[in-house]
Amino acid sequence: MQELIAKLETFVAERDWERSHTPKNLAMALSVEVAEIVEIFQWMNADQSRETDAATRAHLRDEIGDVLIYLVMLARKLDIDPLAAAHAKLEKNRIKYPAGSRPEKDFHGQT
Amino acid sequence: MQELIAKLETFVAERDWERSHTPKNLAMALSVEVAEIVEIFQWMNADQSRETDAATRAHLRDEIGDVLIYLVMLARKLDIDPLAAAHAKLEKNRIKYPAGSRPEKDFHGQT
Amino acid sequence: MQELIAKLETFVAERDWERSHTPKNLAMALSVEVAEIVEIFQWMNADQSRETDAATRAHLRDEIGDVLIYLVMLARKLDIDPLAAAHAKLEKNRIKYPAGSRPEKDFHGQT
Amino acid sequence: MQELIAKLETFVAERDWERSHTPKNLAMALSVEVAEIVEIFQWMNADQSRETDAATRAHLRDEIGDVLIYLVMLARKLDIDPLAAAHAKLEKNRIKYPAGSRPEKDFHGQT
Repeated sequence: MQELIAKLETFVAERDWERSHTPKNLAMALSVEVAEIVEIFQWMNADQSRETDAATRAHLRDEIGDVLIYLVMLARKLDIDPLAAAHAKLEKNRIKYPAGSRPEKDFHGQT
Repeated sequence: MQELIAKLETFVAERDWERSHTPKNLAMALSVEVAEIVEIFQWMNADQSRETDAATRAHLRDEIGDVLIYLVMLARKLDIDPLAAAHAKLEKNRIKYPAGSRPEKDFHGQT
Repeated sequence: MQELIAKLETFVAERDWERSHTPKNLAMALSVEVAEIVEIFQWMNADQSRETDAATRAHLRDEIGDVLIYLVMLARKLDIDPLAAAHAKLEKNRIKYPAGSRPEKDFHGQT
Repeated sequence: MQELIAKLETFVAERDWERSHTPKNLAMALSVEVAEIVEIFQWMNADQSRETDAATRAHLRDEIGDVLIYLVMLARKLDIDPLAAAHAKLEKNRIKYPAGSRPEKDFHGQT
């Protein structure tokens, strides 16, 4: 992860993109990249989404790469370590959703 | 990253969430988490988004943690290594947008 | 639709929200509202999404209302008539996807 | 709006897309279309988003058309009238955010 952060800093500096890389803009770009993943799955059923072919998998690899790139660039602007943030959030989730609790769907808008 | 992946596998297994964690569903959950970041910035101008206070920063840390959690869970289902995917995509982006090229915005829907 | 537009103009003016209602910000708000719909469906399978109960339906009605509200506010800022835009786009889609053509999914990232 | 709904029903029936048009899938498609609007604005500042040129405006018109098309198709599946839903939600918002209240941004994740 540290190597990726360093490479991204060089990449952005070489292109003089710092000015447009506000946290607000990076949040938008992150959401656009995630939508490209959603687009791939939108008309698939559950099983099709589990059994994607090699071409789709290669496409997904590119899009997952882009999402992580924008997430890291956003986190850097906010002085947040994304891996530490994920570990900390996972601890919160452990308490919020105890093991053996009802299925996750019950916590998400279904009653 | 490897430690996060291992912890997430235990977390999901302890809660019996594997069944609902199809790639399709995880892509949706990822987009929902990203929208929580977008929500924080939606009414801020560029400068406000650069100068968030401690409470907002703590909120953003949680949401960035959630985005990385769902991204890692999705990538795992697809046998994709998110860090390797980001490095590979960055190489593609280097070629697509050469250093010293026109500003990024020119490549995104503005003519 | 005209009545909704007029009511929204009054609503925004009474609250002095015009300043923060840039097209950029309204696009973000629109995406946040749509994510609230996605959140409702994220852990459902296809059949569950077809057979939502009354409480979920009431929740969806609120969210669909919010999406249309932000879409109309965004379109107004851009001097775009959303209904005319939808009719025009439907004509384009008729040509792009001829009747009797292969299923829609073939056009969306699946090969 | 009624004319648009009728046209969309014919359009979908002629292409045999009903099967893949579950509420879940339509919610995903709606979010993908909204992301295409967000993409247009992602690197613009507030003023640039207010002063888009004719080509960008034409692009936005197409995307706003697509968003309304998917919103109407989703609402139809759920037996929800989107215009009535927007009017009802606006009444709720009137009560939630009284006229003369603090700016909207205070209600959205900023404290």
